[in-house]
Amino acid sequence: MLRHVALFRFKPETTNEQIAAAMDALSTLSDQIEVLRKFRYGPDASITEGTWDFAVIAVLDNADDYIAYRDHPAHVAALRDHIAPIIFEAARIQFESAGEGSPRPKGS
Amino acid sequence: MLRHVALFRFKPETTNEQIAAAMDALSTLSDQIEVLRKFRYGPDASITEGTWDFAVIAVLDNADDYIAYRDHPAHVAALRDHIAPIIFEAARIQFESAGEGSPRPKGS
Repeated sequence: MLRHVALFRFKPETTNEQIAAAMDALSTLSDQIEVLRKFRYGPDASITEGTWDFAVIAVLDNADDYIAYRDHPAHVAALRDHIAPIIFEAARIQFESAGEGSPRPKGS
Repeated sequence: MLRHVALFRFKPETTNEQIAAAMDALSTLSDQIEVLRKFRYGPDASITEGTWDFAVIAVLDNADDYIAYRDHPAHVAALRDHIAPIIFEAARIQFESAGEGSPRPKGS
Protein backbone atom coordinates (compact mmCIF):
# COMPACT_ATOMS: atom_id res chain seq x y z
CA MET A 1 0.00 0.00 0.00
CA LEU A 2 1.22 3.46 -0.91
CA ARG A 3 0.26 6.44 1.20
CA HIS A 4 0.18 9.97 -0.14
CA VAL A 5 0.22 12.62 2.59
CA ALA A 6 -0.24 16.35 2.10
CA LEU A 7 -0.07 18.83 4.96
CA PHE A 8 -1.09 22.42 4.44
CA ARG A 9 -0.68 25.72 6.18
CA PHE A 10 -3.37 28.18 5.20
CA LYS A 11 -2.95 31.83 4.34
CA PRO A 12 -3.78 33.97 7.38
CA GLU A 13 -6.77 35.51 5.64
CA THR A 14 -8.38 32.12 4.96
CA THR A 15 -12.00 32.01 6.15
CA ASN A 16 -13.92 29.15 7.76
CA GLU A 17 -16.20 29.25 4.72
CA GLN A 18 -13.27 28.59 2.41
CA ILE A 19 -12.13 25.68 4.57
CA ALA A 20 -15.66 24.26 4.61
CA ALA A 21 -15.84 24.56 0.82
CA ALA A 22 -12.50 22.74 0.49
CA MET A 23 -13.79 19.95 2.73
CA ASP A 24 -16.99 19.71 0.70
CA ALA A 25 -14.91 19.38 -2.46
CA LEU A 26 -12.70 16.71 -0.86
CA SER A 27 -15.77 14.81 0.36
CA THR A 28 -16.79 14.10 -3.24
CA LEU A 29 -13.46 12.60 -4.33
CA SER A 30 -13.69 9.17 -2.74
CA ASP A 31 -16.75 8.28 -4.83
CA GLN A 32 -15.29 9.71 -8.02
CA ILE A 33 -11.72 8.39 -7.95
CA GLU A 34 -11.75 4.63 -8.27
CA VAL A 35 -8.10 4.08 -7.27
CA LEU A 36 -8.60 5.61 -3.79
CA ARG A 37 -8.59 2.79 -1.26
CA LYS A 38 -8.92 5.13 1.71
CA PHE A 39 -9.15 8.90 1.88
CA ARG A 40 -8.78 10.84 5.14
CA TYR A 41 -8.68 14.58 5.57
CA GLY A 42 -9.44 17.23 8.11
CA PRO A 43 -8.33 20.34 9.95
CA ASP A 44 -5.88 20.37 12.84
CA ALA A 45 -7.52 19.26 16.09
CA SER A 46 -5.84 22.01 18.15
CA ILE A 47 -4.35 19.57 20.65
CA THR A 48 -0.78 20.87 20.49
CA GLU A 49 1.01 24.05 19.49
CA GLY A 50 2.94 24.53 16.28
CA THR A 51 0.96 22.13 14.14
CA TRP A 52 0.01 22.67 10.51
CA ASP A 53 -3.57 23.50 9.52
CA PHE A 54 -4.92 20.68 7.38
CA ALA A 55 -4.06 17.12 6.38
CA VAL A 56 -4.99 14.82 3.51
CA ILE A 57 -4.05 11.13 3.43
CA ALA A 58 -4.79 9.04 0.35
CA VAL A 59 -4.14 5.29 0.46
CA LEU A 60 -3.49 3.67 -2.91
CA ASP A 61 -2.28 0.34 -4.18
CA ASN A 62 0.81 1.59 -5.98
CA ALA A 63 2.58 4.48 -7.69
CA ASP A 64 0.52 4.25 -10.89
CA ASP A 65 -2.66 4.60 -8.85
CA TYR A 66 -1.17 7.61 -7.07
CA ILE A 67 -0.54 9.29 -10.42
CA ALA A 68 -4.10 8.42 -11.51
CA TYR A 69 -5.39 10.08 -8.31
CA ARG A 70 -3.13 13.09 -8.68
CA ASP A 71 -4.18 13.68 -12.27
CA HIS A 72 -7.86 12.77 -11.91
CA PRO A 73 -10.00 15.69 -13.14
CA ALA A 74 -12.05 15.75 -9.91
CA HIS A 75 -8.87 16.01 -7.81
CA VAL A 76 -7.33 18.60 -10.10
CA ALA A 77 -10.52 20.69 -9.92
CA ALA A 78 -10.75 20.47 -6.11
CA LEU A 79 -7.13 21.56 -5.79
CA ARG A 80 -7.46 24.37 -8.30
CA ASP A 81 -10.78 25.77 -7.10
CA HIS A 82 -10.72 25.22 -3.35
CA ILE A 83 -7.32 24.26 -1.96
CA ALA A 84 -4.65 26.09 -3.97
CA PRO A 85 -6.27 29.51 -3.35
CA ILE A 86 -5.93 29.18 0.45
CA ILE A 87 -2.52 27.46 0.69
CA PHE A 88 0.39 29.31 2.21
CA GLU A 89 2.69 26.28 2.43
CA ALA A 90 2.41 22.59 1.54
CA ALA A 91 4.43 19.50 2.51
CA ARG A 92 3.88 16.30 0.55
CA ILE A 93 5.22 12.76 0.56
CA GLN A 94 4.38 9.36 -0.86
CA PHE A 95 5.58 6.37 1.12
CA GLU A 96 5.27 2.62 1.39
CA SER A 97 4.54 1.88 5.00
CA ALA A 98 7.05 -0.27 6.82
CA GLY A 99 4.58 -0.90 9.61
CA GLU A 100 1.71 -2.28 7.59
CA GLY A 101 -0.49 -4.76 9.41
CA SER A 102 -3.93 -5.39 10.75
CA PRO A 103 -5.43 -3.00 13.27
CA ARG A 104 -4.87 -4.20 16.81
CA PRO A 105 -7.96 -4.50 18.98
CA LYS A 106 -7.72 -2.30 22.05
CA GLY A 107 -6.29 -4.18 24.99
CA SER A 108 -4.65 -6.94 22.96
CA MET B 1 -10.18 8.12 15.34
CA LEU B 2 -7.44 10.68 15.69
CA ARG B 3 -4.53 10.71 13.31
CA HIS B 4 -1.15 12.19 14.19
CA VAL B 5 1.02 12.89 11.15
CA ALA B 6 4.65 13.99 11.19
CA LEU B 7 6.59 14.74 8.03
CA PHE B 8 10.32 15.27 8.18
CA ARG B 9 13.03 16.70 5.99
CA PHE B 10 16.45 15.34 6.89
CA LYS B 11 19.67 17.24 7.22
CA PRO B 12 21.70 16.93 4.00
CA GLU B 13 24.46 15.00 5.77
CA THR B 14 22.06 12.31 7.02
CA THR B 15 23.30 8.82 6.17
CA ASN B 16 21.33 5.76 5.11
CA GLU B 17 22.58 4.09 8.28
CA GLN B 18 21.00 6.81 10.40
CA ILE B 19 17.70 6.44 8.55
CA ALA B 20 17.83 2.65 8.99
CA ALA B 21 18.49 3.09 12.70
CA ALA B 22 15.53 5.47 12.99
CA MET B 23 13.29 2.94 11.24
CA ASP B 24 14.52 0.18 13.55
CA ALA B 25 13.65 2.35 16.53
CA LEU B 26 10.21 3.11 15.12
CA SER B 27 9.59 -0.57 14.42
CA THR B 28 9.66 -1.32 18.14
CA LEU B 29 7.05 1.27 19.14
CA SER B 30 3.88 -0.47 18.02
CA ASP B 31 4.47 -3.34 20.45
CA GLN B 32 5.46 -1.04 23.30
CA ILE B 33 2.83 1.69 23.10
CA GLU B 34 -0.57 0.27 23.92
CA VAL B 35 -2.59 3.24 22.69
CA LEU B 36 -1.31 2.95 19.10
CA ARG B 37 -4.11 1.54 16.96
CA LYS B 38 -2.10 1.76 13.74
CA PHE B 39 1.42 3.00 13.11
CA ARG B 40 2.76 3.67 9.61
CA TYR B 41 6.10 5.16 8.69
CA GLY B 42 8.61 5.17 5.90
CA PRO B 43 10.85 7.16 3.60
CA ASP B 44 9.67 9.03 0.54
CA ALA B 45 9.03 6.66 -2.38
CA SER B 46 10.69 9.01 -4.93
CA ILE B 47 7.65 9.11 -7.19
CA THR B 48 7.43 12.88 -7.51
CA GLU B 49 9.70 15.88 -7.09
CA GLY B 50 9.64 18.25 -4.15
CA THR B 51 8.42 15.79 -1.55
CA TRP B 52 9.60 15.59 2.06
CA ASP B 53 11.86 12.77 3.23
CA PHE B 54 10.03 10.71 5.81
CA ALA B 55 6.51 10.24 7.17
CA VAL B 56 5.02 8.88 10.39
CA ILE B 57 1.28 8.31 10.87
CA ALA B 58 -0.06 7.22 14.26
CA VAL B 59 -3.75 6.33 14.57
CA LEU B 60 -5.19 6.73 18.05
CA ASP B 61 -8.62 6.72 19.64
CA ASN B 62 -8.57 10.25 21.00
CA ALA B 63 -6.49 13.21 22.15
CA ASP B 64 -5.61 11.65 25.51
CA ASP B 65 -4.18 8.63 23.72
CA TYR B 66 -2.18 10.91 21.44
CA ILE B 67 -0.62 12.57 24.48
CA ALA B 68 0.10 9.12 25.97
CA TYR B 69 1.85 8.17 22.71
CA ARG B 70 3.74 11.45 22.49
CA ASP B 71 5.00 11.20 26.06
CA HIS B 72 5.62 7.44 26.15
CA PRO B 73 9.24 6.77 27.15
CA ALA B 74 9.83 4.52 24.13
CA HIS B 75 8.63 7.24 21.76
CA VAL B 76 10.57 9.95 23.56
CA ALA B 77 13.73 7.82 23.37
CA ALA B 78 13.31 7.05 19.65
CA LEU B 79 12.82 10.73 18.90
CA ARG B 80 15.72 11.85 21.06
CA ASP B 81 18.23 9.21 19.97
CA HIS B 82 17.39 8.56 16.33
CA ILE B 83 15.05 11.12 14.80
CA ALA B 84 15.81 14.52 16.31
CA PRO B 85 19.52 14.30 15.40
CA ILE B 86 18.75 13.99 11.67
CA ILE B 87 15.81 16.39 11.35
CA PHE B 88 16.21 19.58 9.38
CA GLU B 89 12.50 20.46 9.35
CA ALA B 90 9.32 18.90 10.72
CA ALA B 91 5.61 19.41 10.00
CA ARG B 92 3.07 17.93 12.39
CA ILE B 93 -0.69 17.77 12.71
CA GLN B 94 -3.34 15.87 14.62
CA PHE B 95 -6.72 15.54 12.94
CA GLU B 96 -10.03 13.76 13.19
CA SER B 97 -10.71 12.33 9.77
CA ALA B 98 -13.82 13.57 8.03
CA GLY B 99 -13.70 10.70 5.60
CA GLU B 100 -13.62 7.80 8.02
CA GLY B 101 -15.14 4.58 6.73
CA SER B 102 -14.43 1.03 5.75
CA PRO B 103 -11.86 0.30 3.09
CA ARG B 104 -13.48 -0.07 -0.33
CA PRO B 105 -12.70 -3.27 -2.19
CA LYS B 106 -11.11 -2.57 -5.54
CA GLY B 107 -13.66 -2.37 -8.31
CA SER B 108 -16.65 -1.68 -6.07
